[in-house]
Amino acid sequence: MAKNMQTTLMQKARASGSIDTFELTCLLWGNERIVKERRASFKRVEKALGTYDSTKLPRCYSETSREDLFEQGLEMGKACLDDMLEHNHEYFVWITPRYNLVNASPFGHKAVLFEPAMEHNGTEEQKAQWLPLARSGKILGTYAQTELGHGSFVRGIETTATFDPDSDEFVVHSPTISSTKFWPAGLGFSTTHGAVMARLIAGGQDQGPHIFLVQLRSLEDGKPMPGIKMGDVGLKLGYNEADNGFASFDQVRLPRSQMLMAHSQLARDGTFIKDPLRAKLSYSVMLLVRGRMPSIFTVQLAQALTIATRYSVVRQQGLGPADALNTEVGIFQYKHQHFRLMSMIAKTYAMFFGSRACDDQYNELREMQSKNDHSLLPSVHALTAGMKAYVTSEAADGAEDARKLCGGHGYMSISGLPDIAGALTGGATFEGENYVLWQQVGRHLLKQLDCLQDGEPIEPQVQYLADVGDPNIACSAFGTQFLDPEVQLTIYRDRAHRLVVKAHSAIRASSKLPADALNEHMMLLISASRAHIEYFILRSFIDTIASLPDTTSSGLRTVLNRTRSLFALSTIINPRTVDALSFVETAHSDSPYLTTMQLDLIRSLVNSLLDQLLPEAIALTDAWDFSDASLCSALGMYDGNVYENIMRWIEQLPINQKAWQKGGVQEGWEKWVDPILKREIAKL
Amino acid sequence: MAKNMQTTLMQKARASGSIDTFELTCLLWGNERIVKERRASFKRVEKALGTYDSTKLPRCYSETSREDLFEQGLEMGKACLDDMLEHNHEYFVWITPRYNLVNASPFGHKAVLFEPAMEHNGTEEQKAQWLPLARSGKILGTYAQTELGHGSFVRGIETTATFDPDSDEFVVHSPTISSTKFWPAGLGFSTTHGAVMARLIAGGQDQGPHIFLVQLRSLEDGKPMPGIKMGDVGLKLGYNEADNGFASFDQVRLPRSQMLMAHSQLARDGTFIKDPLRAKLSYSVMLLVRGRMPSIFTVQLAQALTIATRYSVVRQQGLGPADALNTEVGIFQYKHQHFRLMSMIAKTYAMFFGSRACDDQYNELREMQSKNDHSLLPSVHALTAGMKAYVTSEAADGAEDARKLCGGHGYMSISGLPDIAGALTGGATFEGENYVLWQQVGRHLLKQLDCLQDGEPIEPQVQYLADVGDPNIACSAFGTQFLDPEVQLTIYRDRAHRLVVKAHSAIRASSKLPADALNEHMMLLISASRAHIEYFILRSFIDTIASLPDTTSSGLRTVLNRTRSLFALSTIINPRTVDALSFVETAHSDSPYLTTMQLDLIRSLVNSLLDQLLPEAIALTDAWDFSDASLCSALGMYDGNVYENIMRWIEQLPINQKAWQKGGVQEGWEKWVDPILKREIAKL
Repeated sequence: MAKNMQTTLMQKARASGSIDTFELTCLLWGNERIVKERRASFKRVEKALGTYDSTKLPRCYSETSREDLFEQGLEMGKACLDDMLEHNHEYFVWITPRYNLVNASPFGHKAVLFEPAMEHNGTEEQKAQWLPLARSGKILGTYAQTELGHGSFVRGIETTATFDPDSDEFVVHSPTISSTKFWPAGLGFSTTHGAVMARLIAGGQDQGPHIFLVQLRSLEDGKPMPGIKMGDVGLKLGYNEADNGFASFDQVRLPRSQMLMAHSQLARDGTFIKDPLRAKLSYSVMLLVRGRMPSIFTVQLAQALTIATRYSVVRQQGLGPADALNTEVGIFQYKHQHFRLMSMIAKTYAMFFGSRACDDQYNELREMQSKNDHSLLPSVHALTAGMKAYVTSEAADGAEDARKLCGGHGYMSISGLPDIAGALTGGATFEGENYVLWQQVGRHLLKQLDCLQDGEPIEPQVQYLADVGDPNIACSAFGTQFLDPEVQLTIYRDRAHRLVVKAHSAIRASSKLPADALNEHMMLLISASRAHIEYFILRSFIDTIASLPDTTSSGLRTVLNRTRSLFALSTIINPRTVDALSFVETAHSDSPYLTTMQLDLIRSLVNSLLDQLLPEAIALTDAWDFSDASLCSALGMYDGNVYENIMRWIEQLPINQKAWQKGGVQEGWEKWVDPILKREIAKL
Repeated sequence: MAKNMQTTLMQKARASGSIDTFELTCLLWGNERIVKERRASFKRVEKALGTYDSTKLPRCYSETSREDLFEQGLEMGKACLDDMLEHNHEYFVWITPRYNLVNASPFGHKAVLFEPAMEHNGTEEQKAQWLPLARSGKILGTYAQTELGHGSFVRGIETTATFDPDSDEFVVHSPTISSTKFWPAGLGFSTTHGAVMARLIAGGQDQGPHIFLVQLRSLEDGKPMPGIKMGDVGLKLGYNEADNGFASFDQVRLPRSQMLMAHSQLARDGTFIKDPLRAKLSYSVMLLVRGRMPSIFTVQLAQALTIATRYSVVRQQGLGPADALNTEVGIFQYKHQHFRLMSMIAKTYAMFFGSRACDDQYNELREMQSKNDHSLLPSVHALTAGMKAYVTSEAADGAEDARKLCGGHGYMSISGLPDIAGALTGGATFEGENYVLWQQVGRHLLKQLDCLQDGEPIEPQVQYLADVGDPNIACSAFGTQFLDPEVQLTIYRDRAHRLVVKAHSAIRASSKLPADALNEHMMLLISASRAHIEYFILRSFIDTIASLPDTTSSGLRTVLNRTRSLFALSTIINPRTVDALSFVETAHSDSPYLTTMQLDLIRSLVNSLLDQLLPEAIALTDAWDFSDASLCSALGMYDGNVYENIMRWIEQLPINQKAWQKGGVQEGWEKWVDPILKREIAKL
């Protein structure tokens, strides 16, 4: 690698950190063994795909049509499946740094939705028959719930599965255009089976949505089964490696045994037995996926921030703050760049630790459910919904801001940032639209407060609502007390408390119908839900630090504490914070929770934390352990050699190569440019 | 058109408005004649391009490789140029609704930058020689300022133009990789001439950046001129119809007459005469473009909102607020959807009227400059910088939220929204990175306050800083007083006043070097700049209504007044408002400017305004007069027939057509899917 100003700046920045990056990497991913296994699996797949050599322009930037991108997804998906089957691991199932991910491949639904749908809803017999086939890739499945006209509202689904007692079969049918199954990954061309949600009609009775196992394509030649029309929905803002598709069914027949009957059963004679818990249990697959999304999205945001951090360290522009020297400064020096980047890095750590705490709750639920205790379901449902909505929203905004922090060059596809930002912003919608989820969290909080007022027990997550302290009493902290985790936590807890109580009072006091009252005060309820989740995240960060292994170095503890303080304090005074007013508004109309003096103090502490953490920025992003191939970015490579990396990739673009082979003239010249230059002038 | 639920809903919504849409259209675009001419020119170009028939899938969704998109840009650019030359108009130069726009074509720089660069910097002789060629398309120009390593900091540019007195020529050269010219539209393959910014080196002296007219390609065959290497930068987040490119120069010679010498001159003997105003005057092209960007970006945001509004009217989901009826409701009914959409529609009107007020200022400057009076330059420079930063940022965020408001379907390319959002977000960076611009606005405000304190005159835009009223005295309005434009304006003015004074005090009181003091308090300074611009926009909205023609109907006046109130009030309490805390923070630490009671009152007034304006939503978006072809959206067509429009386009996708021709099997099946299904199982 050539020594130049950029690589020198990168080496300096990397040397400036005080912590052992590998120690932090092991903390993030679990332990040293996992870190090493992950590295090895990424390396194998990157070598198989030819992306390991980062001097080569990645194919996603050179072959860019809809068809090309899909083919790359097929290749990448197969390589990941092969590696997981051969080496018996799951590193590509959930945590999916951009490339080499099952998530954005045509086979994404396989392990993430199809197999869980079977596991959670199939009878023992059904599972014994189908799961081995699914797991070994002898069939490839997708999960088909959403329709052209129906997304988050499952009860509105129109596809029907009508029981025909004569033949002992179901007839699956799409009665309208809007009932066309729409969006499932792989549905277009590359899956053989679908777990299809359809309304069960038996004996003329509509029994509501159930899941049916429908063979979509021939296992021999891939041809669609009779009566099924399938195709691709075309290019999207992200995930173009997958063939998110549509399917319409024209009187498709399947045996009765292919309704998943763990919870409800339809007997040979048409008798229907409805499981009273069915509605609750059908959440479980959704919960599984939603529960995993916060960590996936946090890690993808970390990728965007890794690229932006590396670029900010080596990019020089303007004379900067200390202009006496008359040399251009690194753009990280500019306070707005510094503030945005470091506060997002801090938020990434907060959300990651929050996601892990959310995972723990989910695992506890599954554990209890296996003993037939479903009591945790409402609280875990609300928590995963809120975490999913919070993290996907923050991750999308953060990745977009990371892109902007790279200026014009972040606008190029080869920066890797448009694709990351485009993928992340999809998360606001799929697996539950975020605003719908916020309402679900809100309803849960309202009910909890009802319980509290009725003297009934409430769940531990909302115990703070029962605290005797009046959350409207102004914060009395001053000076460096604001660095105290308990002070920070109190600020967030009181804010959530105030907002939940305020929303509850407004809605319960309304004379309107319950649904209308809720709608009238929905903005307030959403703010309350968000504050509740932000409090959970800060608490998780504090708990994580408190329970670090004894072997953790004091240097790392210091940096994590500062990172936590930066998250907690910068969120209060960040000009772009959502619901910022609620940090100061109290029920006592003219007495703010935090005074201007306190806010200015917090601003000044944030400035100090920014200065303390600046030297750690490379370590805090290197620690995520992303390979150059998985970042897929000319701006974000480990070496920092940004200008040479950009030009090396651009020179390999086929549009340039082709033009240069023809003396520098691109093929459009003759048809479109030449006639302009040589036109007769009509008027001027 | 088939009658169905969606088209029926659209007709109902369109019929619910109280205003004459055409009256508003004429107000927006100028007058009836302009509206009709615009419509005719769009129709001609759409027919030429084959996009007029909206049942046909637009090519941008079917031919999607880098090469395809560029070719579509060539075709579209030529069609626009042809139409403008033949019909002698400029409708495709500046206001550029997505398709049929010069802005995003390979020829975009021609009229927008290249010709103005010549007009503003060329001598009379140079203009007489080159401008007719440029205007008639006999040469195609671009403006090449930015380099791989140099964006906003013009002084850092590395390209050199060294005067060789022996031959009376300049030698243009790229001394480093980072000096490669980078980003100009059309530079890749399709322009013949560049206005190239390079450091003038004469007699061994570096005289700083000047503009040189460099022929890039042969007019005969399009071959690059000797010593010039050019190419494309590849796919970007938007504007892929243009070949934003790079160029490096290897000792390229041009005659001395090709330095643009209106302001500085280099004589035959190498004597250099520097115009003392050069630095100021070189702003002028930048000012022109920046000055136009706010209206362009506002109109593009209006496109996104038109799509989202139409979709929100016809999309039904869930049981909604009044769930008694057990039918699904239109998603516009949900308060969060309603709030986000209507408040953005209101903001679009505010920004459009603000942009026009900004245009007026620019025109006044040009008028005075033509009389050699440059006194308005600093204030117009600050205003255009601030308006550009504000509007591009709000437009990008707004378009992205409009996309989210369309749920999953907004994620599909054929919704038109990913492309609009991708184009708008580029505006945060090009023509001046927004955070750099905010600092420029901030510096101007600081200087004005210095002047005020020194008893020197200040410019009218900041006259409020001289007002005797203490902006820290809490707002005393109550009830419907908040609907009074003067009350609204006072809230915004006091807020800007407080922030400017606070930033000024902090920076001027600092003991650090001036540049370091500025950097330390930069977040505060940026907030002050933003508040200053938000005040300007609200004032412009109020002024626009006050000066409506007498013939304006009272119905339209009422709707515009409500729209203005919604903008003013929703911005205060919107959870996503930037710098929201500054609406309540005052210098009197514990006395907020607005109390919780007042804020709740504002929330309640906003709810009423939302209800009043809901029936006008279609009229307020129809009024922009966008053709279906220019929206290019399966979700946003005028008829509202969304599900049929989606499926009609998707069925035409080549990837589907090809697969269906082969029995429904896509070509990747055999190579990638079949081997997975038939693999030997190694382990499980």
